[in-house]
Amino acid sequence: MNELTDLSYALDTFYFLICGVLVMWMAAGFSMLEAGLVRSKNTAEILTKNIALFAIACTMYLLVGYYIMYSGNAGGFLPNLGFLIGAENSVDAVTAGGDDAPYYSMRSDFFFQVVFVATAMSIVSGAVAERMKLWAFLAFAVVMTAVIYPVSGYWTWGGGWLAEVGYSDYAGSGIVHMAGAAAALAGVIVLGPRKGKYGKDGSIHAIPGANMPLATLGTFILWMGWFGFNGGSELKLAAVDSANNVAQVFVNTNAAAAGGVIAALILAKLWFRKADLTMALNGALAGLVAITADPLSPSALGATIIGAIGGLIVVAAIVTLDKAKLDDPVGAISVHGVVGIWGVLAVPLNNDGASFGPQLIGIVGIFAWVFIASLVVWLILKAIMGIRVTEEEEYEGVDLTECGMEAYPEFSVANK
Amino acid sequence: MNELTDLSYALDTFYFLICGVLVMWMAAGFSMLEAGLVRSKNTAEILTKNIALFAIACTMYLLVGYYIMYSGNAGGFLPNLGFLIGAENSVDAVTAGGDDAPYYSMRSDFFFQVVFVATAMSIVSGAVAERMKLWAFLAFAVVMTAVIYPVSGYWTWGGGWLAEVGYSDYAGSGIVHMAGAAAALAGVIVLGPRKGKYGKDGSIHAIPGANMPLATLGTFILWMGWFGFNGGSELKLAAVDSANNVAQVFVNTNAAAAGGVIAALILAKLWFRKADLTMALNGALAGLVAITADPLSPSALGATIIGAIGGLIVVAAIVTLDKAKLDDPVGAISVHGVVGIWGVLAVPLNNDGASFGPQLIGIVGIFAWVFIASLVVWLILKAIMGIRVTEEEEYEGVDLTECGMEAYPEFSVANK
Amino acid sequence: MNELTDLSYALDTFYFLICGVLVMWMAAGFSMLEAGLVRSKNTAEILTKNIALFAIACTMYLLVGYYIMYSGNAGGFLPNLGFLIGAENSVDAVTAGGDDAPYYSMRSDFFFQVVFVATAMSIVSGAVAERMKLWAFLAFAVVMTAVIYPVSGYWTWGGGWLAEVGYSDYAGSGIVHMAGAAAALAGVIVLGPRKGKYGKDGSIHAIPGANMPLATLGTFILWMGWFGFNGGSELKLAAVDSANNVAQVFVNTNAAAAGGVIAALILAKLWFRKADLTMALNGALAGLVAITADPLSPSALGATIIGAIGGLIVVAAIVTLDKAKLDDPVGAISVHGVVGIWGVLAVPLNNDGASFGPQLIGIVGIFAWVFIASLVVWLILKAIMGIRVTEEEEYEGVDLTECGMEAYPEFSVANK
Repeated sequence: MNELTDLSYALDTFYFLICGVLVMWMAAGFSMLEAGLVRSKNTAEILTKNIALFAIACTMYLLVGYYIMYSGNAGGFLPNLGFLIGAENSVDAVTAGGDDAPYYSMRSDFFFQVVFVATAMSIVSGAVAERMKLWAFLAFAVVMTAVIYPVSGYWTWGGGWLAEVGYSDYAGSGIVHMAGAAAALAGVIVLGPRKGKYGKDGSIHAIPGANMPLATLGTFILWMGWFGFNGGSELKLAAVDSANNVAQVFVNTNAAAAGGVIAALILAKLWFRKADLTMALNGALAGLVAITADPLSPSALGATIIGAIGGLIVVAAIVTLDKAKLDDPVGAISVHGVVGIWGVLAVPLNNDGASFGPQLIGIVGIFAWVFIASLVVWLILKAIMGIRVTEEEEYEGVDLTECGMEAYPEFSVANK
Repeated sequence: MNELTDLSYALDTFYFLICGVLVMWMAAGFSMLEAGLVRSKNTAEILTKNIALFAIACTMYLLVGYYIMYSGNAGGFLPNLGFLIGAENSVDAVTAGGDDAPYYSMRSDFFFQVVFVATAMSIVSGAVAERMKLWAFLAFAVVMTAVIYPVSGYWTWGGGWLAEVGYSDYAGSGIVHMAGAAAALAGVIVLGPRKGKYGKDGSIHAIPGANMPLATLGTFILWMGWFGFNGGSELKLAAVDSANNVAQVFVNTNAAAAGGVIAALILAKLWFRKADLTMALNGALAGLVAITADPLSPSALGATIIGAIGGLIVVAAIVTLDKAKLDDPVGAISVHGVVGIWGVLAVPLNNDGASFGPQLIGIVGIFAWVFIASLVVWLILKAIMGIRVTEEEEYEGVDLTECGMEAYPEFSVANK
Repeated sequence: MNELTDLSYALDTFYFLICGVLVMWMAAGFSMLEAGLVRSKNTAEILTKNIALFAIACTMYLLVGYYIMYSGNAGGFLPNLGFLIGAENSVDAVTAGGDDAPYYSMRSDFFFQVVFVATAMSIVSGAVAERMKLWAFLAFAVVMTAVIYPVSGYWTWGGGWLAEVGYSDYAGSGIVHMAGAAAALAGVIVLGPRKGKYGKDGSIHAIPGANMPLATLGTFILWMGWFGFNGGSELKLAAVDSANNVAQVFVNTNAAAAGGVIAALILAKLWFRKADLTMALNGALAGLVAITADPLSPSALGATIIGAIGGLIVVAAIVTLDKAKLDDPVGAISVHGVVGIWGVLAVPLNNDGASFGPQLIGIVGIFAWVFIASLVVWLILKAIMGIRVTEEEEYEGVDLTECGMEAYPEFSVANK
């Protein structure tokens, strides 16, 4: 191996690692977003769920998930089963020459992939907040990150049947975001809404989150982390074309988020007559989810528009889900699910290599798998251990009953 | 193009993108700083302004600002007008060889520049906090990021008349920070102080911010992001001299911030007999603003001293502006404006390539343009839609009237 | 020097700088963690301490610490004394060829080292929180970062006698973390516990922290920053082996933190019958501290286990120190000291190049030096200026008496 290849290998490895750190940072973003959007009496518990799910995701993906996702046969439906990350990750695997030679450290690839799993799982925690048992949630996290996500991951990025069909999803509007939302939707259906959310007379009661600066911080963290999420998904930096592509992805990711904020804020102003901060935040996230399926092909202006449409959709989706009595305290199903579908469907608009048929097949395939598998797991957990806290615990707040502590022991005085 | 050039191109592009991400992160820093320094009743609104101004800045700079700033004639006064980022940003623009060949992706350059605009605009939001109408502010943001900042940006970094004159401003103590402060000052003058800030008997009432951890977090975020702000402004990494320069810039940026903290904290202790946290935070920011005009030429010790002087200046400036009844809730005009001028004037002390004359011309030129243009825009907005909320709305807090929500619905009990 | 070496030099410099930024970011992590774990009446003061200690560390290490740590004779005990960073840091030091030629900018090395000192010092602030005088603490910070840490740093990373003995500590479980904890322990002993923490009847009263989201955010920041802390300690990226090693370090650092969370959370659930969020956070940090002494040699599964053992140890250590009436409000001595020792002792389990004898010598040598030197400094400070606030000040909260402000002036209503 000549030294030029060495340098290229090192640069691409570093690129993966830094992008991976940015994606890892998204775990903090989800934590802050969700902690800001729940009531103070449920804040410590949602924080516990978030840091624990990240730890579980990293460990389960290491133990079985990565093997399931990346060691199967091309075009297949059933993944291989195996234990631990395989020998292909040996640092000795780098050999001189040949097109098959790894051009970056396989360990850096694992690092980049493992933080993606945690992202998918983080989407679930917000939707089921304020009423789900902590340990039931963590048990679900084990199955989701060990099996459910890796299987559909194998179908797509792992080279399975959806990849063969021609499903195109650059960084995972569908594979990560809609998948997380599908698992969340199943959970929300089994779990039911929070007490007091929907009146018997059909009325809908807003339950404001306790800490808007935290929610805003979380959104900015996610925005920042998304540069790693999308930017790293080019999978190569060290060539002129690759570098140009990565740069385009950064520009478009930012443009789409900006478009989402503006569109959601204006729509909220027109619709609700107020500049609703939570809608602006959801608009940013919607823009990011929308562009994730193809942040490379559109122009920057095109990305702004795709993000803006995402911002409009998310506002409408949040209102619609609320009317359907699907209680999602942070709007995760709307942001990641509904807008994730928009993102996947928008790919053929700019990318000649994609077409609507395979995109629809992908949406249906991923959604059906993740939703049904999750539903089964939630129902099993419900039967075995129960997934919902008691009414009294819900009224008291899950912080005290699950974690034995308060998130803000000196502040909280109202709205219990 | 040989492969060595490829790698260099990729490394420089990556360097730009990562520095750009750090600058984008400064938007979160400004948001948290400002959210921590206002009262709780105005927190959701300042967060809304911050995320919306970032989105507007990114979109307007994409639509017209970048073209205005970087497509004009060398030495000129009037910029070209144009729409969208131009063909020079095509990924096809990279050609083999020649000194004019781009050595990094033009998209990455755009990404780095676009987040700078947002920084300039973020400075404004803090100074006019707690009494300006949300939509008037956003309207100003459109003009500021589309035209006002890009025009003086063209004069300097775009190769216009100030660049010809010899004005030297490495990363923008004047071009970005003082420019933002000039726009803020115009806004503060038109807007007037918050109710209750200055008594009729000439007394000055401190209005404490609601959340010091947020303000501290914001400062640390800005400190971190500044490594991208200054470090990326070398514009090249992939050569021994360039890498040494970038490293020196990182060291000096950090040293200046440290000097600013120490000096401001000691001065506050001597002057006010207390270790004033907000002064320590402003000292850090002052150190960073001061070194921004030339973070390369001084030694690390020199940078510490430049930052320390910035820390002393900012404490004095905050007290002085308060006496002048210029009500700036977060001290933005002092930090970015007064200290920005110090930074620009300090350049010739260490940099033989700069001299005081052009520095003064630059300060006057940029300040006059941004201040007058902003004043005109503020006055027009005042005439058309009004820029100040009503007294009753100000008393109630702009969160409820502008955003229809509270930032901390369960906590806030005092000091309404 | 050929262009290939240029690029390698630039890439390694960039790698150092980015890792350094991540370590600098840990200062924000410690600030948020400690601000979340103290009571609201002591929050502004702990924030002031944190930003001031970072500034002091950067300045003192620049003035004398770096010279002490890195300019001494190989194998020596007494360091050289000197002023400022030396000529070896000149950008001119890069010469063509030879094995001794710097392969990255010495400035970037300084930047990476300087943020490590601040980390060691940040550990102290949490342990002595809520009762130590601000200026006594800052005076200690001057001595710690100028002399105490650099001397043992010279013994190890500077090539002194502990390096000769064969003490192995990749990124500083002992050199940084246990050293910080040793200084903290000396302070806690001289200072005594907070009023009301231990009853005369032997009872122990939990004093809950005021803001759990902040503490969680701080933990995530530290987790993120640790990728720079450990990842940068390979000291080279630009070669296939180096890149593979750096990637392995990232994977293992993440795996250990995940293992720590899971183990601590389960142990807390079994022991205290609740999913204690603060134990989960301490578990993450314990996992990170444990792997820091050797994040390269273990497999990812091995790293998970080392981290998990760290997570078990930290829970037991916190309970034990509390029984010993060593009052450490944030658990810093347990996390960084006790688990740091575990990390150092775990090195020979996976690394054939290390053995238990030198590891024990290193632990005893570093601990004895830092503990005794710190004890002397604390006692001198106690004699000269006093290190503890008055009982009345402690009851009132140090925010008002030291900083003249409240951290949350509108919220705080209970538990004063």
